[in-house]
Amino acid sequence: MDETTTARLDHDRERRTGIPEVVLCERKSPDGAVAIMRRFMEREGRAIATRVTAEQAGSLLAAFPGGHHNALARMFTVGNLPAAAGRPIAVVCAGTSDLPVAEEAHEMLRALGHPVVRHDDVGVAGIHRTMAILPSLEPCTAVIAVAGMEGALASVLAGLIRQPVIAVPTSVGYGASLGGLAALLTMMNSCAPGICVVNIDAGFSAACVAHKFAAAFSGNGSKPS
Amino acid sequence: MDETTTARLDHDRERRTGIPEVVLCERKSPDGAVAIMRRFMEREGRAIATRVTAEQAGSLLAAFPGGHHNALARMFTVGNLPAAAGRPIAVVCAGTSDLPVAEEAHEMLRALGHPVVRHDDVGVAGIHRTMAILPSLEPCTAVIAVAGMEGALASVLAGLIRQPVIAVPTSVGYGASLGGLAALLTMMNSCAPGICVVNIDAGFSAACVAHKFAAAFSGNGSKPS
Amino acid sequence: MDETTTARLDHDRERRTGIPEVVLCERKSPDGAVAIMRRFMEREGRAIATRVTAEQAGSLLAAFPGGHHNALARMFTVGNLPAAAGRPIAVVCAGTSDLPVAEEAHEMLRALGHPVVRHDDVGVAGIHRTMAILPSLEPCTAVIAVAGMEGALASVLAGLIRQPVIAVPTSVGYGASLGGLAALLTMMNSCAPGICVVNIDAGFSAACVAHKFAAAFSGNGSKPS
Amino acid sequence: MDETTTARLDHDRERRTGIPEVVLCERKSPDGAVAIMRRFMEREGRAIATRVTAEQAGSLLAAFPGGHHNALARMFTVGNLPAAAGRPIAVVCAGTSDLPVAEEAHEMLRALGHPVVRHDDVGVAGIHRTMAILPSLEPCTAVIAVAGMEGALASVLAGLIRQPVIAVPTSVGYGASLGGLAALLTMMNSCAPGICVVNIDAGFSAACVAHKFAAAFSGNGSKPS
Amino acid sequence: MDETTTARLDHDRERRTGIPEVVLCERKSPDGAVAIMRRFMEREGRAIATRVTAEQAGSLLAAFPGGHHNALARMFTVGNLPAAAGRPIAVVCAGTSDLPVAEEAHEMLRALGHPVVRHDDVGVAGIHRTMAILPSLEPCTAVIAVAGMEGALASVLAGLIRQPVIAVPTSVGYGASLGGLAALLTMMNSCAPGICVVNIDAGFSAACVAHKFAAAFSGNGSKPS
Amino acid sequence: MDETTTARLDHDRERRTGIPEVVLCERKSPDGAVAIMRRFMEREGRAIATRVTAEQAGSLLAAFPGGHHNALARMFTVGNLPAAAGRPIAVVCAGTSDLPVAEEAHEMLRALGHPVVRHDDVGVAGIHRTMAILPSLEPCTAVIAVAGMEGALASVLAGLIRQPVIAVPTSVGYGASLGGLAALLTMMNSCAPGICVVNIDAGFSAACVAHKFAAAFSGNGSKPS
Amino acid sequence: MDETTTARLDHDRERRTGIPEVVLCERKSPDGAVAIMRRFMEREGRAIATRVTAEQAGSLLAAFPGGHHNALARMFTVGNLPAAAGRPIAVVCAGTSDLPVAEEAHEMLRALGHPVVRHDDVGVAGIHRTMAILPSLEPCTAVIAVAGMEGALASVLAGLIRQPVIAVPTSVGYGASLGGLAALLTMMNSCAPGICVVNIDAGFSAACVAHKFAAAFSGNGSKPS
Amino acid sequence: MDETTTARLDHDRERRTGIPEVVLCERKSPDGAVAIMRRFMEREGRAIATRVTAEQAGSLLAAFPGGHHNALARMFTVGNLPAAAGRPIAVVCAGTSDLPVAEEAHEMLRALGHPVVRHDDVGVAGIHRTMAILPSLEPCTAVIAVAGMEGALASVLAGLIRQPVIAVPTSVGYGASLGGLAALLTMMNSCAPGICVVNIDAGFSAACVAHKFAAAFSGNGSKPS
Repeated sequence: MDETTTARLDHDRERRTGIPEVVLCERKSPDGAVAIMRRFMEREGRAIATRVTAEQAGSLLAAFPGGHHNALARMFTVGNLPAAAGRPIAVVCAGTSDLPVAEEAHEMLRALGHPVVRHDDVGVAGIHRTMAILPSLEPCTAVIAVAGMEGALASVLAGLIRQPVIAVPTSVGYGASLGGLAALLTMMNSCAPGICVVNIDAGFSAACVAHKFAAAFSGNGSKPS
Repeated sequence: MDETTTARLDHDRERRTGIPEVVLCERKSPDGAVAIMRRFMEREGRAIATRVTAEQAGSLLAAFPGGHHNALARMFTVGNLPAAAGRPIAVVCAGTSDLPVAEEAHEMLRALGHPVVRHDDVGVAGIHRTMAILPSLEPCTAVIAVAGMEGALASVLAGLIRQPVIAVPTSVGYGASLGGLAALLTMMNSCAPGICVVNIDAGFSAACVAHKFAAAFSGNGSKPS
Repeated sequence: MDETTTARLDHDRERRTGIPEVVLCERKSPDGAVAIMRRFMEREGRAIATRVTAEQAGSLLAAFPGGHHNALARMFTVGNLPAAAGRPIAVVCAGTSDLPVAEEAHEMLRALGHPVVRHDDVGVAGIHRTMAILPSLEPCTAVIAVAGMEGALASVLAGLIRQPVIAVPTSVGYGASLGGLAALLTMMNSCAPGICVVNIDAGFSAACVAHKFAAAFSGNGSKPS
Repeated sequence: MDETTTARLDHDRERRTGIPEVVLCERKSPDGAVAIMRRFMEREGRAIATRVTAEQAGSLLAAFPGGHHNALARMFTVGNLPAAAGRPIAVVCAGTSDLPVAEEAHEMLRALGHPVVRHDDVGVAGIHRTMAILPSLEPCTAVIAVAGMEGALASVLAGLIRQPVIAVPTSVGYGASLGGLAALLTMMNSCAPGICVVNIDAGFSAACVAHKFAAAFSGNGSKPS
Repeated sequence: MDETTTARLDHDRERRTGIPEVVLCERKSPDGAVAIMRRFMEREGRAIATRVTAEQAGSLLAAFPGGHHNALARMFTVGNLPAAAGRPIAVVCAGTSDLPVAEEAHEMLRALGHPVVRHDDVGVAGIHRTMAILPSLEPCTAVIAVAGMEGALASVLAGLIRQPVIAVPTSVGYGASLGGLAALLTMMNSCAPGICVVNIDAGFSAACVAHKFAAAFSGNGSKPS
Repeated sequence: MDETTTARLDHDRERRTGIPEVVLCERKSPDGAVAIMRRFMEREGRAIATRVTAEQAGSLLAAFPGGHHNALARMFTVGNLPAAAGRPIAVVCAGTSDLPVAEEAHEMLRALGHPVVRHDDVGVAGIHRTMAILPSLEPCTAVIAVAGMEGALASVLAGLIRQPVIAVPTSVGYGASLGGLAALLTMMNSCAPGICVVNIDAGFSAACVAHKFAAAFSGNGSKPS
Repeated sequence: MDETTTARLDHDRERRTGIPEVVLCERKSPDGAVAIMRRFMEREGRAIATRVTAEQAGSLLAAFPGGHHNALARMFTVGNLPAAAGRPIAVVCAGTSDLPVAEEAHEMLRALGHPVVRHDDVGVAGIHRTMAILPSLEPCTAVIAVAGMEGALASVLAGLIRQPVIAVPTSVGYGASLGGLAALLTMMNSCAPGICVVNIDAGFSAACVAHKFAAAFSGNGSKPS
Repeated sequence: MDETTTARLDHDRERRTGIPEVVLCERKSPDGAVAIMRRFMEREGRAIATRVTAEQAGSLLAAFPGGHHNALARMFTVGNLPAAAGRPIAVVCAGTSDLPVAEEAHEMLRALGHPVVRHDDVGVAGIHRTMAILPSLEPCTAVIAVAGMEGALASVLAGLIRQPVIAVPTSVGYGASLGGLAALLTMMNSCAPGICVVNIDAGFSAACVAHKFAAAFSGNGSKPS
């Protein structure tokens, strides 16, 4: 018995919640990752994996030569994914060390069919960089703000724009950053209203939140028949 | 010198961010609360206060006889508030002790012009109560889920509906609830994607997040002239 | 001097408490693990080890060819273990990453002579999976609920069934899961009464609690002569 | 609107889980407490309240002259409660300051129809007192061990008896007791297997756990028709 | 014996460290506060008290009619204090609730003889307010930035100005602000270099740090004869 | 420049405090450890090192062939150490995993010239083992109690014996043991008076405390000439 | 039933451990405190109470006119207490706000028959004050060091004297002092060996530790017949 | 896309804040580190890197043969750095294990053009070592105090000198040192005024704070044209 065979795939999840079930590769063997991805491909014609290691990626590429491995985002996607459509969602990150988390959000938004406006290294230590991106955020429906260390980017943005801010604290930092808890607390306590927060390093979750809002507003909110 | 006179009112905030500046009455004298609210009324024709004590409410009602005091929500509103329009937002709470926080979210949504679908006491200890409200959530664009203790309501809802869940942990509980931190952590770590979290007891913040999403999607996202 | 020779085996423990002393292999050398297991075999005709590494398992299998190594549970058992008898105990886990902890509970229940009803991957993100197992829990005397991340499975189950829930938080998760503390707090603060909690990743402990309840109720509670 | 009228009474809870819904009086007005208790009396012929203040108790006694107020336990019960039957459950507490929590467990067990063996002030600082009660625990099916400060009572008992130990940390202590977290951690990390833990000061929860075990073992575990 | 008589006044402290010993009135009786202040007046011709309650202030004013009570700062000063001289130090605070802490810093700077540039309510939720004060900070030698909630003001300022930022987290906030720890962590982890941090609500400490820097640079750093 | 050359050896420490300076080998290179030990040997004729790795031990043995390496205690001693004299000090540990910490206390006591009464694996899960050692503790002047997990051994001993208990929490445990903090808190909050606590895994510190007490009482407490 | 009647007085404790049982008055009614103290007086001819409120003290003085109330220490003693004998123990405290804790240690040492050398307000901010007391510590067998805020007094003393230091952190401080945890951690991590630590504000515990050491060394360590 | 190409270099930072942008090498590949350093060299004629690994240093030295690698400080500098000028800044550290952090502060001060007075291993366990350095601190404008474990060095220094103390807690220690949090809290709660604190192990940050103060006082504080 292993987790490949015991996993109860929730093929109905996308119909029910609007988000397809995604394979979290952490703690899986490369073969196990391939086996579960194959079950999704067979049933749904597409499969999405997160937290993919280099070794897992090798096995996945061998099994699914048409798949796409985004090494920075640690994601692997294969099959019929939707084309980008609708209004864009912004992904901005404070520092270059936060890139993997921003890239995970970006890649997941792509997999869900959203155009993305992307800006990196726009943290508040050089606030002119933050200010410079504001015009490009205007057409967006939401801004995913990725920041470690003290995580002030989300607060500053939320005081400047009409879009909601989905804040992603990252584990970038040291000492009193407490593995990302400091940034999480900063974002939770923001003096600027209109910020909501997801787990540390959870670029994937931020993309799902943005997608759910986009789906709720663009559709009629009721379940498809 | 006191904080009434030193406050720099941010009258431009609504134009810039879509959310009017709101008076947080905590730590203010009744007279101070009245004075700041008057400055807003004079300039903008409406004023909104949160965390209003009974004593402050007395002074505010005396000063603004046409105002509205929602004692459960600890809010006071006066002046030209928008009529409800657009698709509704849901506010659900897990237990009756969570009511003040849910009511704050509800009252703030009203002040921002949103219809609200409201359900109380639908916590997962009696999950049939949770299931029973699902149909009424379908027309909503988002669900604000208010819960203390272990805060599992947000996870359960997020696995069942297409709408995004804005989770509000409350300080209801005792012992290892750590003043709401346990519920906050539960919501942060949800196994169901599509949840974002605001601060403990922050019904106001949840309403602002929902409003910003509604504004971003219903409008064109650019700033009004 | 090493811990193999200084260990004071508590051969009386089973008579006194109903649970045999078990060898915790963590921090032991493979030879040390074999030596202590041999002392138990000589004295009691059976021996049970937990947290067994692959290297320790190799040495143990070489020393005790008739033994049983459950790699997923990281346990090794050898000798005269009781046959399964009595009413079953359920072991359910929320996600496939929680499998090792669930398997440890399962293997320990086996070693103590209990039939087990087992369900994996029934977390609340797909609550229909949780609901689907309810009928199979009816004949059980207790349910061991194993969950990481936000750990909501225990709460949901406790609100639906007559059986007590022994909740096992796991260290599965990241960021604000705090190595399993988030799940532990969730379970501690459950709004559904009838849940008790053991340490993080302590599948072994949950099995012992279930066994002690079964022994107390099936016997007369007094010590055997 | 207040929580008296919005409360969704879960009259089915006892049939479903074996534990009747109980009114948590914290944060309720005396009139609100009476109103909810009356709804239970009308529907089910009995009602149970916990965390009852002196003022609430006055109103409850006036409304329900036949009710019973246990001031130490902060509980109020009224109506047709089951007579004590079956094998006893033990409630032991470490120090006299832990009495209110032990008494809550005791009163709730009474309300659920269990005989109770009770011992107070048997903490490990005078371990002869702990040893002296062991014979009286033999007929019991479980032991609820209530302790604050360092909470070692649960560990010592678990190493000495066949009965499972349901450990209740209390907030008794100061300084590094962290409001009961120190005792909670002690109990979680016990070196003696067979201990499970409930929330700080949660005498009520411990009684529910014991009751669920008793019901699961004495009955057939299936739901009554 | 009480603390008035046992206090060992450190009359040499100013010569040694450049900062006179100051009376912390917390936990002192009004009479005790007066007695200690009198000892300082007799010996040094001036006395400074912090954390003065209204009741203590009444007794101090009666005893020292020429003294000055700054109620917002909770400070009382009397005697020969230095006239303001040298380049100014800035004190800025994020929100009006942070005023008491900013005022304590301000009053202590006055007592140490520094001109002060003061700005209130310039938090980053309305960053134009932050930007607007930058020119006035140019002549200052340091900026004391006082902020609660998420405390992002210090980071933003430090990225914009040449002056060092002495950051003072405040206990303003609720929920996950953890009594000011969230703001403290934000300031500790700032991505903008040049920030140092003092204790929560420690306006007094920030003033002492600024004073020590001013003294070290304006003087020759050696002790006066 | 490295720490071998910059170290300011405190050769006067033993005269001043009664405890010789000891070399903490953590973070030192093998050569650096040898160099500092040599400086002590040259000046004082003996040297003591703690937290010695296997690699460092190899270099130390090569450099000081007459030295003694206690691998379990991770200590290395060489030179003229005092012979054991005076009344014994007891070192007891709860479980075999705590052995390295107990052995460090034991080896340090040896190096300081104290006879030791030693007992291992006497944790409270089998309290008869704890009871069995009591007579052997009677001649001792103090008891060093080493325990991880829930650390209850110190409390139980302190309630039974006249000797003071120096409690050493260890990092043995998992999950909610928080790296030894749980045991530390248990020991801090003991209901039995007469316990004092040192840092987690600090066998060395416990030996120093015992030594200082022995020196203070056996000598006249004044500094030697 | 109340805790006065349920308390199991441990009259044997002094013979067994060398420390008489002491009445902790916290959470007791004035009448309850008197009743328990009377039981001790009747049986043992002396009684000691700690954490005595002003109201409790009034009742105790009325009941035991010959008793002694130390208001600063919050203690009440009555009956045949031993005369001071043997070598002194020092009690030193860092600031005047720490006086109540120092006084509790002092009063408890008196009740146990120890001469005390006492120094107040000798914190390290004016280290000449610390240095000045060193000669007076020489005849002492141990030093109880009481300090809040950062608690550095214990470290500094331990590096300067031969006596062991029993460190008592206090809850004096604010903000990041975390109710005394900061001082506790400082003392735990001291770079100077020979420090042991008791709970926050536990002057009583420190006295018991000192007493146990004195008893162990002055006597023969065996139990009296 | 990688972080080398996405990094938005803030070439204006030095003009704006007085501190040049510095390359944090953590999480960068050796090639990536070289690439970013080259961009700085090309634009500004000098480049500074922190947290440089041995592998990165090899690549950097190969790319910039004229560069300087300080292995203990983990820094690499190359190009036109300012010559030392002005009054010195002191860097002192408590123990030899704190050397890497002290060296980072020292190297960064060098890179910013400050003379440095340096003392190592002057912790308070041997306070005569601390006292001995006081005269050498007199010409300095500030003292950077680096200490792990209990971090008392900052408090002791601040009570003895006129210079401000910039305290750097380090992660040196074990057990209850909590990775440096204990030292951070000690420094935050110092009873001696005039201490400010930077993040754990943040020697770089301390140097920047000292530099900003020096620049603010030596210049006119206004931005250069």
